[in-house]
Amino acid sequence: MSSARAGDDPATGDRLPFAASPPDVRGRGFSSRAALPVMEGWIDATVGPLPPRAVALADLPATLAEGLVLAEPVKAPGDWPPADRAARDGVAVASSDTLGAGSYNPVPLPGAVTVAAGEPMPPGTDAVLPVEAMQADGPFVEALGSAAPGEGVERRGEGLRGGTVLLKAGHRLRPQDLGLLTALGIDTVRVGARPRVRIVLAGGPRSGPETLGAMLTALATRDGGVVELVGPLPADRAALAAAYAAPGADLLISAGRTGVGEDDVAPLALAEAGQLALHGVALRPGDSAALGTAGGVPAVLLPGEPMACLTAYELLAGRALRRLAGRDPGLPHPAVPAVVVRKLVSEIGCTELYRVRRTADGMVEPVASPHRPGLAGAVLADGFVLIPAESEGVPAGATVTLRCFDGTSL
Amino acid sequence: MSSARAGDDPATGDRLPFAASPPDVRGRGFSSRAALPVMEGWIDATVGPLPPRAVALADLPATLAEGLVLAEPVKAPGDWPPADRAARDGVAVASSDTLGAGSYNPVPLPGAVTVAAGEPMPPGTDAVLPVEAMQADGPFVEALGSAAPGEGVERRGEGLRGGTVLLKAGHRLRPQDLGLLTALGIDTVRVGARPRVRIVLAGGPRSGPETLGAMLTALATRDGGVVELVGPLPADRAALAAAYAAPGADLLISAGRTGVGEDDVAPLALAEAGQLALHGVALRPGDSAALGTAGGVPAVLLPGEPMACLTAYELLAGRALRRLAGRDPGLPHPAVPAVVVRKLVSEIGCTELYRVRRTADGMVEPVASPHRPGLAGAVLADGFVLIPAESEGVPAGATVTLRCFDGTSL
Repeated sequence: MSSARAGDDPATGDRLPFAASPPDVRGRGFSSRAALPVMEGWIDATVGPLPPRAVALADLPATLAEGLVLAEPVKAPGDWPPADRAARDGVAVASSDTLGAGSYNPVPLPGAVTVAAGEPMPPGTDAVLPVEAMQADGPFVEALGSAAPGEGVERRGEGLRGGTVLLKAGHRLRPQDLGLLTALGIDTVRVGARPRVRIVLAGGPRSGPETLGAMLTALATRDGGVVELVGPLPADRAALAAAYAAPGADLLISAGRTGVGEDDVAPLALAEAGQLALHGVALRPGDSAALGTAGGVPAVLLPGEPMACLTAYELLAGRALRRLAGRDPGLPHPAVPAVVVRKLVSEIGCTELYRVRRTADGMVEPVASPHRPGLAGAVLADGFVLIPAESEGVPAGATVTLRCFDGTSL
Repeated sequence: MSSARAGDDPATGDRLPFAASPPDVRGRGFSSRAALPVMEGWIDATVGPLPPRAVALADLPATLAEGLVLAEPVKAPGDWPPADRAARDGVAVASSDTLGAGSYNPVPLPGAVTVAAGEPMPPGTDAVLPVEAMQADGPFVEALGSAAPGEGVERRGEGLRGGTVLLKAGHRLRPQDLGLLTALGIDTVRVGARPRVRIVLAGGPRSGPETLGAMLTALATRDGGVVELVGPLPADRAALAAAYAAPGADLLISAGRTGVGEDDVAPLALAEAGQLALHGVALRPGDSAALGTAGGVPAVLLPGEPMACLTAYELLAGRALRRLAGRDPGLPHPAVPAVVVRKLVSEIGCTELYRVRRTADGMVEPVASPHRPGLAGAVLADGFVLIPAESEGVPAGATVTLRCFDGTSL
């Protein structure tokens, strides 16, 4: 089995979890909605990492900001530094020659050799005195201070022993990592795949299709995907099904037409294109999202209401994409503890997302309740707080986990 | 005056701060080093944002992850939504028609109209009942629950009033911002410049030039620059000066040859190419860094020792670049409070950087002291802690500010 293909059962290769399609909810409403952990569990059971790709280190510096995640651990091939060397500019000495030297007791050093930081230690020396601790007396060099053995010297293997695991699988590469890997002579690393993400705009009256297309493209790019944007398409089951099942994608994301109106044909189209595994999630906003497979790859249907679309992307579609890309499937938003100014109420049985902003005194306050549609609340917010389904909310003054929308925190 | 040119005095247009060049330290050592805030102050006084660039929103989604910062605030051009509309799929009703309705008291609604979320409210209606609260009785529709006025309706301007400042200057654009800006009909925004950064590898024995070139390219790209990599060049004053002064850059960064050895000619080359304003900073690692101008643009000389280079980049070169790019000049690393496992000692009068990693119980411990050269410590670290010059360190159990090397925290 390809670990990346959705819908394959590890044991039999053909069975699917939740094989019976959920009912058509149009005009009827949802009789039940899956708990968020059930949806997440379906994704985790169905979606695995695509084969990693080998990239040359020389190609990485300009693209590092896009996020590159190691697919396998990197070990130090040998000791670093490979030999004793000067840790600073100065004069290499035998430390025993400097015993008792001081500014009132200059000690001549006939065999002293000037070294620059990084140069190998000359034979017979074991310390580097800084330039400030030396003086010239005619042709002679004198020490104005003593050096202990090893002082000013970087010893072989001091930075790193050969075989040490430098970076674990899943590690997101940082600038200094490139520097050390290059210094160690490692010229290629294996990093997570860049999944091909087809985003189908299934239309809907809520907002211009560009709204969702721009936002979803930015989100999927952030999570490591290469985006193909399709649509907006009419509310036509066959047209949507054809777009869903077309080859060439590793993940299908569709936005819009997931609700209970007559035109909400996206779930039916998914059933036609592959499998509709779960439709409806106990998540607010985002409760009409659906999961399944299309053309042999995982598929996530997002609501067309923009805030519901954003929420369901982050928690469901993004999770699937991050798994395909070999990244941490959890939310990519920095998490910090924060104290809430006001009570946040939440319905038991439903995971709710509050958009919040920081106050002047370092606490957070809600900008918009989970019921409030539209992106304005998310734009005015610094981050969000998730209230789990088993909670009826948190009182004023409680500490919660703030998820920051951008990369900053504190 | 162009606010982006270094070396111009706002009042006279030609005077420079710190006009007298620092002394040649080769073979002698530093007689004094500038405090870090003095170096930062020089950068802040000398380097301002380059003119912003206008970008089409349609071009942004695929490049958002690189970091795009607004150069001016964005206001809502009008109310959003522009008219009352359905907040959910259901049936639009006059709320007064549903008074007293319940599952044991279905109330007929002869004028009910099905609406999808986002559709305008039909005349004479002021609420949307969910599909689950309706039933069909032959040709008639009956309400099984009552609706309060405005229930299920998103009112005009509820999300946003026209004229509201949506996003401030300096804001880093996020996916949802693109969604809302597009929905509001804003198709162009002004964002910070992409400064042209020339990185000159001035050589030095410490490590392969690729080490610093790869790391510095990744760092400068992260901070919004477009990098031109030059070298490695020989330790030749005239050759370096020519590379420093060549036209076509907005910022010069040079790495290596800043110390007290005979070959440390980078500061002399900078004086020849423009001005050497400050050489030596009370910062460990990174103490041989220098600031000045070359060919009319700001110039930062970084030490060649890789860890000193990284530190001086983050605190000095990166600050200059972030200012040119119109970004927050402060460190871009997420900052979170953390408790230190062990004492961190620090020399009074010197800002020191400890590389630290998280422990299993959520505290941080030092990986490498400020004296330890090499990138291995930074690669094994999760972040760093800065001990300010006025402090002699922090005791075990103290809370410090952890700066995370990557975008995650907690």
